Amino acid sequence: MSSNDNATPLQDLSPTKCYGCGSLNEQGLQIKSYLEGDECVCEWTPEDYHVAGPDIVYGGIIASLIDCHSGSAAMAFAHKEQGLEPGEDPSLMYLTKTLTVEYLRPTPMGSPLQLRARAVKFQGRGAQIACDLYCQGELCARGDSVFVRPKSD
Amino acid sequence: MSSNDNATPLQDLSPTKCYGCGSLNEQGLQIKSYLEGDECVCEWTPEDYHVAGPDIVYGGIIASLIDCHSGSAAMAFAHKEQGLEPGEDPSLMYLTKTLTVEYLRPTPMGSPLQLRARAVKFQGRGAQIACDLYCQGELCARGDSVFVRPKSD
Repeated sequence: MSSNDNATPLQDLSPTKCYGCGSLNEQGLQIKSYLEGDECVCEWTPEDYHVAGPDIVYGGIIASLIDCHSGSAAMAFAHKEQGLEPGEDPSLMYLTKTLTVEYLRPTPMGSPLQLRARAVKFQGRGAQIACDLYCQGELCARGDSVFVRPKSD
Repeated sequence: MSSNDNATPLQDLSPTKCYGCGSLNEQGLQIKSYLEGDECVCEWTPEDYHVAGPDIVYGGIIASLIDCHSGSAAMAFAHKEQGLEPGEDPSLMYLTKTLTVEYLRPTPMGSPLQLRARAVKFQGRGAQIACDLYCQGELCARGDSVFVRPKSD
């Protein structure tokens, strides 16, 4: 049993309608992220129509997973850095400024995808998050995301 | 009437099941791209559930549109460069190596999005494509994609 098995997913602490990670969006991807030590982890299985070509996961879905999971990770890391629990007020919401995804190899269909995000840098209202995406034990894509916190919180 | 009004969309010349642009994927986004001079253009309207937050288009959908449209543009530009018509054999299919999306401002819901892609560089089996995404006349996101053609064609 991993350390997050009994935890509430970060997205369920702050329910939204976000297409990627909102637990209130019935048509959305509904990804679920968990803090695990210094990392933030997520497991998600594509539907059979999330294909780029035969048996290969669609790259835009990979970009969506990396973006959304990294955003949730940024919030959770920021809470932790400020001595707050995930989901506590203020929300410390981050908006994506730049998303870079490097596709290292085709990601095969039919297996769960694992994402592992970690903080690269927090500076002022900005956050940089690295995120690796694995399938069947192989690193398939690597994300580098820069987020900024709007001035309203 | 724009110059592409009577043209067949690039995706309908080579029907696939790609989630982003395949005309054979009933659950997919089914984007349609057209050559227009030195650019490749696409117009697409998000569904009401493609939200990031209230009235804001989800960033992963924006990344998907930019990636898929830029990939179709790369194929079409490569055909043109070789004196071939879009859709002719060989297919000159490109796979995404790196996708970078810069989110310049929140993209509002409720209006069609316009994408305009242009070739930055073709070298060997690689292609670099720039793609601007507009909504309501404003530039909302900018994509920079690097593609590579697999060795099989």
